[in-house]
Amino acid sequence: MPQTTTTNRRIVLAEHPTGELTAKTFRMEQAEIPQPVAGQMLLRTLWLSLDPYMRVRINAGPSYRDPVALGSAMVGGTISQVVESRHPGYQAGDLVIGYSGWQDYALSDGNNIDIKLDPAMAHPSWGLGVLGMPGFTAWHGLVNIGEPKAGETFVTAAATGAVGQIAGQLAKARGLRTVGIAGGADKCRYAVEALGFDACVDHRAADLPGELQKACLGGIDIYFENVGGAVFDAVLPLLNPHARMPVCGLIAHYNGGGASGDRLPLMFATLLKRLKMQGFIIYDHYPSHYADFFQAMSGLLAQGAIQVREDVIGSLEEAPEGLVSLLAGRNFGKVVVKVA
Amino acid sequence: MPQTTTTNRRIVLAEHPTGELTAKTFRMEQAEIPQPVAGQMLLRTLWLSLDPYMRVRINAGPSYRDPVALGSAMVGGTISQVVESRHPGYQAGDLVIGYSGWQDYALSDGNNIDIKLDPAMAHPSWGLGVLGMPGFTAWHGLVNIGEPKAGETFVTAAATGAVGQIAGQLAKARGLRTVGIAGGADKCRYAVEALGFDACVDHRAADLPGELQKACLGGIDIYFENVGGAVFDAVLPLLNPHARMPVCGLIAHYNGGGASGDRLPLMFATLLKRLKMQGFIIYDHYPSHYADFFQAMSGLLAQGAIQVREDVIGSLEEAPEGLVSLLAGRNFGKVVVKVA
Repeated sequence: MPQTTTTNRRIVLAEHPTGELTAKTFRMEQAEIPQPVAGQMLLRTLWLSLDPYMRVRINAGPSYRDPVALGSAMVGGTISQVVESRHPGYQAGDLVIGYSGWQDYALSDGNNIDIKLDPAMAHPSWGLGVLGMPGFTAWHGLVNIGEPKAGETFVTAAATGAVGQIAGQLAKARGLRTVGIAGGADKCRYAVEALGFDACVDHRAADLPGELQKACLGGIDIYFENVGGAVFDAVLPLLNPHARMPVCGLIAHYNGGGASGDRLPLMFATLLKRLKMQGFIIYDHYPSHYADFFQAMSGLLAQGAIQVREDVIGSLEEAPEGLVSLLAGRNFGKVVVKVA
Repeated sequence: MPQTTTTNRRIVLAEHPTGELTAKTFRMEQAEIPQPVAGQMLLRTLWLSLDPYMRVRINAGPSYRDPVALGSAMVGGTISQVVESRHPGYQAGDLVIGYSGWQDYALSDGNNIDIKLDPAMAHPSWGLGVLGMPGFTAWHGLVNIGEPKAGETFVTAAATGAVGQIAGQLAKARGLRTVGIAGGADKCRYAVEALGFDACVDHRAADLPGELQKACLGGIDIYFENVGGAVFDAVLPLLNPHARMPVCGLIAHYNGGGASGDRLPLMFATLLKRLKMQGFIIYDHYPSHYADFFQAMSGLLAQGAIQVREDVIGSLEEAPEGLVSLLAGRNFGKVVVKVA
């Protein structure tokens, strides 16, 4: 049944899936087209976006937002046309990126509209991809978290997917060597020939770690993490010192599959809580910042603003024993050995 | 045997330990005092620093630097006095922070000297603690990775240790609520009474996760990771959205103990390779940056600089099936549903 001007088709969440989606997860309903009140507008859906995050939102438990309620229209980003407006900022015919979900019509008060599009634009659906959430994800993850530098090696999984295809092209344009990971020969060929990746590895290869290593002989400086699982297992040993990993998805695990160890809770927390975990070795920062630190800390000590507790070991001979105690947590304060 | 002016006592690495250190790990030797050539100086060790990283450096395998060689003097930060100088930048009597290691005397060409200290300073050993590597570690990790904000909750393990005692005081001075974790009642009392922590939890408590939760009812915004293991298990569920975790050590695992799952390799890689892993959800960034992104990306598309691949699903009815395919990786490009 196609879209009509008399009925609102809605696909609602019928049950929370526990693993893969089934025919019972969603159901189609017919409803009346709602009427806008003052301050609202009626939107007609032209395009609906499907994205991996949707799997997380229909779990029964909370993710980064409340779960979609049973019987509610499924959530989703949409390109819509304003049919009727009682909102001062919009008029009939306007084209917008919004969040009407899986239905033909929805009301909006304007708060959930990302942007107005040119009604004459050639590809309105791009507002759900390259110009919308996935494109913005690729951009922000690469630029603001990935900190790309020309000459580095960039790797993304799902290289032909909504995010990967944009992230790879943006990285290439900034002078990075780009290596994609994708499922199957067709996608890998497309990644190289059309998207400009320098190489693309099939994640179904019998020896994914070996294939990826051959494609990344200089190691990996940025890994755009959107899948997790076996792909991340293959990536981890290849990461270079100071590598950056924007984490925007873990699709390998959304249906409950994949790793069962203690890494997965950390990865999900990193994603859903937007954690930043960063290792550092302070010697890297001596040339640039130690003198400044020394001066500032000397000032605090002179003011009596910092208390210092030392655990003094009385002779060089006792140093080995002192190290054993330190590793066992038996020291109380900074351990120093009085040698002279 | 005390330090003399005629012999150089050296503690050398005798064997690479596989777990805890033993009496055979190190041995003491006597050697001649070396003579500086032009451009060098002879340093006499006054103070030697003992630090957890030393355990990692004496493993047989590489860590972030090459392992200490068998028969070599053990490495370590030192406060030394210049005994004789043939280096134009130093003269006899100068006090320096350097890396002479576990011995009475060492030569230096000046390259491994962090800074000159005031020879009259009251506590030269502070150059190995609050004014040296641990203090700088606390400062950099807190300020540059932790991004502290007043009112947030800061947690550090090893709260009375070399790094924790400084990080906690610096965080407190910036208006954060500070919660320490330490081993035993004495250290916990000291952390609160002398170091100014708002609370301190004993990691030997029967219910560490519960005790930590009670001390962090508003969750944790910065966790200064220096131990790993069971402490991190207790911290992880309490991390707030957007929490930051500077990782400067994993002492719980240095002797080979602790977790055996797949999280530990990631944590060690984070530390030794200085990785940055950061989760993000792009919706957070719409208010501040989406309009800029949209304009920039529209320009790239207008130039033909970005290729776009869509996978178009022809009707709203097919959306559920489309989501199943997407989660299975059967899509080829950005998935959009043509609703109208």
